Amino acid sequence: MGKLVKDITSIDQDFAKWYTDVVVKAELIDYSEVRGCTILRPYGYAIWENITKILDDEFKKVGVQNVSMPMLIPERLLQKEKNHIEGFAPEVAWVTMGGKENLTERLCVRPTSEVLFCSHFQRVVHSWRDLPMIYNQWCSVVRWEKTSRPFLRSVEFHWQEGHTLHSSPNEAKDFTLKMLDIYSKFFTQKLCIPVILGKKTESEKFAGAETTYTVECMMKDGKALQSATSHYFGNRFANAFDIKFTNKNNEEETPYQTSWGLSTRVIAAIIMSHGDDDGLILPPAIAPLQVIIIPINFSKNKEVLEKSHEIFDLLKDDFKCKIDDSDESIGSKFATYDMKGVPIRVEIGPRDVLSNSCIIVRRDTHEKIKCSTDNIKETILQTVREIENNIYNVCLENRNKKTIIASSEKEFENHAGFVKMAFCNSSECEQKIKEKYGFTTRCIPFDDKDLISDFCPICGKKSSVNIYFAKAY
Amino acid sequence: MGKLVKDITSIDQDFAKWYTDVVVKAELIDYSEVRGCTILRPYGYAIWENITKILDDEFKKVGVQNVSMPMLIPERLLQKEKNHIEGFAPEVAWVTMGGKENLTERLCVRPTSEVLFCSHFQRVVHSWRDLPMIYNQWCSVVRWEKTSRPFLRSVEFHWQEGHTLHSSPNEAKDFTLKMLDIYSKFFTQKLCIPVILGKKTESEKFAGAETTYTVECMMKDGKALQSATSHYFGNRFANAFDIKFTNKNNEEETPYQTSWGLSTRVIAAIIMSHGDDDGLILPPAIAPLQVIIIPINFSKNKEVLEKSHEIFDLLKDDFKCKIDDSDESIGSKFATYDMKGVPIRVEIGPRDVLSNSCIIVRRDTHEKIKCSTDNIKETILQTVREIENNIYNVCLENRNKKTIIASSEKEFENHAGFVKMAFCNSSECEQKIKEKYGFTTRCIPFDDKDLISDFCPICGKKSSVNIYFAKAY
Repeated sequence: MGKLVKDITSIDQDFAKWYTDVVVKAELIDYSEVRGCTILRPYGYAIWENITKILDDEFKKVGVQNVSMPMLIPERLLQKEKNHIEGFAPEVAWVTMGGKENLTERLCVRPTSEVLFCSHFQRVVHSWRDLPMIYNQWCSVVRWEKTSRPFLRSVEFHWQEGHTLHSSPNEAKDFTLKMLDIYSKFFTQKLCIPVILGKKTESEKFAGAETTYTVECMMKDGKALQSATSHYFGNRFANAFDIKFTNKNNEEETPYQTSWGLSTRVIAAIIMSHGDDDGLILPPAIAPLQVIIIPINFSKNKEVLEKSHEIFDLLKDDFKCKIDDSDESIGSKFATYDMKGVPIRVEIGPRDVLSNSCIIVRRDTHEKIKCSTDNIKETILQTVREIENNIYNVCLENRNKKTIIASSEKEFENHAGFVKMAFCNSSECEQKIKEKYGFTTRCIPFDDKDLISDFCPICGKKSSVNIYFAKAY
Repeated sequence: MGKLVKDITSIDQDFAKWYTDVVVKAELIDYSEVRGCTILRPYGYAIWENITKILDDEFKKVGVQNVSMPMLIPERLLQKEKNHIEGFAPEVAWVTMGGKENLTERLCVRPTSEVLFCSHFQRVVHSWRDLPMIYNQWCSVVRWEKTSRPFLRSVEFHWQEGHTLHSSPNEAKDFTLKMLDIYSKFFTQKLCIPVILGKKTESEKFAGAETTYTVECMMKDGKALQSATSHYFGNRFANAFDIKFTNKNNEEETPYQTSWGLSTRVIAAIIMSHGDDDGLILPPAIAPLQVIIIPINFSKNKEVLEKSHEIFDLLKDDFKCKIDDSDESIGSKFATYDMKGVPIRVEIGPRDVLSNSCIIVRRDTHEKIKCSTDNIKETILQTVREIENNIYNVCLENRNKKTIIASSEKEFENHAGFVKMAFCNSSECEQKIKEKYGFTTRCIPFDDKDLISDFCPICGKKSSVNIYFAKAY
């Protein structure tokens, strides 16, 4: 086996260490000299680029326009919306000097850009003709976190933040859910990760939002990862920032807002949903390299290399593929591309040339498929679909296995997974479970019609919703 | 005429005011509440997106890999290369607080990322197999400028910065010039702006570089805009950061570096190269909207709208096009799209429907072309080529007209344009001309074989190069 793999911790032995091993060994990141900030290396950044391309296309289909706001926010602007500043002030980085001068007003490096969008909207929105305004920006933000872990929690991270303005509450609410639906489809169809969609409780919602919707995923270790959120703001920010528009009857009105975001945390979700002891398993849709072609014993047999190039030419228009004809050992090559989660490996040796065939190896199952080179494209296309289905189903089975329906508080004890139950929806019960077991509410799921029980298992009072609890990243 | 146009200053009356009028009226930017930082609005950002897509594709063809470095740099890291810190320290923004705590070491918001790339290279480069490393990042940087003008000079601006590492000086030098060539072709072929390529003098080169190459363009007012630069670093940074690699003979060597960048200044170059009293004139390759279809008198004649959609369908696969069927007046629509620099307008009225034709109007010359709808695609394709040639030639004529070959110092007086002359290449003469006339050296051009004169017109000493001087943005 290659030198890369032998150094990584087994997934069952220490999940957290396995995760950081994979992140480094697959060359996704390098730790920088800045506390809590990582460098995205070419392979890690390429995954993020692929994610941004897919989402950006989906966003543009629903009318999203990209813009760019400054990265610095004057302190007084951040203070305009009370809940918002309370939520973010403890965790921002402050610029206090420019060149050699002390600034008269501190500027924070944006932790999120609601206030910048609001002050812009206030200046540029005049009439109903200007609405809806459906804006987004791709950027990085800074939150002064005490502890950090690559992709999961870092001082600086990349994300997209959408901010929209609508003439009616219903239009804004619909848009909030439309974006949640785009995220949901992206996770299930492109990342092959099953999701639970729902609403956050009062105590878990975004600072300043009226309602927060969320995409929750279960990682292999049973913990939850909040993977994308979409917020309905009502007109709370619009009021704070005095945003007005003239309606068709020439009357002044206050518009309604949303915001929605997804970050490089999604890469953590990919790693911890699909990875195994050999490293990453990347969903084909976002893999920087989808097919790696490995010629075997080609130094003594130049037809092997010719055949490899022939296969490359057959595949290159449909897949991101590459031939590795370096002088590394075969074992090391196999281990490297397994570590990097390349979905499909094509092996071509001298005997394969003679029989006009090759071996296709699936990264997810390590299954080997003998394939005639005549229909290699179709076989790989089909194999990609099978990989997508399989890795989705593996996640789903894991989630089903690790989700319990609780009827008493003690079921939280020692459970590594989701706890679903009827709930009184009080912050007291939430707080109690958080302190006692480390479980937080993830969401009130959308698709539940019936209450699991009429009573909350924690306080015994009447239940009003079903809810998911989990330990979360 | 529309309300947009009547408010802008004439280009001949006040070029600077015309520029800022256009930037705002064409809705490229909004001024933010942060000193020196502007908001890129959808139309402005879309131009930048188009620029980034074209360049990113070209970069990737020569093996560039995108990465992402942190936006914060610890002070001690910035200080590692002496010339570099001297060049940048006076103009950085300092983060001194995180949350409520004072930091033990200040962090600057990156003004450029050489030092971050170097410290990363030091950690990840081991052997000749790792070279060349050809990295780039698209990001924004901050420089604490006292004065600011949209796209030209601002506290925060978007750019790309490429950083590469090579095993030999020649390979690094070649790569520096290869990137300059990509920029040059981008300016001439895509932006339709003629360029002068050359080398910066010692006093004008980048802080820390051994050689700086530049793309210099002349704006309509005769001033120069440095539009892209490519630097050869030798192994100065590599030594400062102790970057080593093992060569094929298993000996330790120091690699050679380059960096190269292009920023949103390029949008200023587009505006000031091509614009006129009606607003922007956008080169078709980067125009967010290439063809605007305007139905005329369609409320009384639904066939006009049908025909407009028919034409839209004929064009939509080849051009970024849109139908404007809003209830704004025709005059206001014409003025708006002229202001926004949309290269081609297609007008369709009731009579055009009857004759199966339409009117194509060129933004650059306002020329009207009657065209059968049967071959509208071909006609527009050809018109696009003609626009590209014409706007390039208009720039070239302007530059030729405003470039003088000087044989005496007094020719600088009252000249609004480039001054080309033989030069002793001393910083004393450079300094004298800068102080007396406000002209700086732009570059020592590549393509000059013969010295204009054997003597420098300023000091009378022997000349060694030809050079361009200009007042510069």
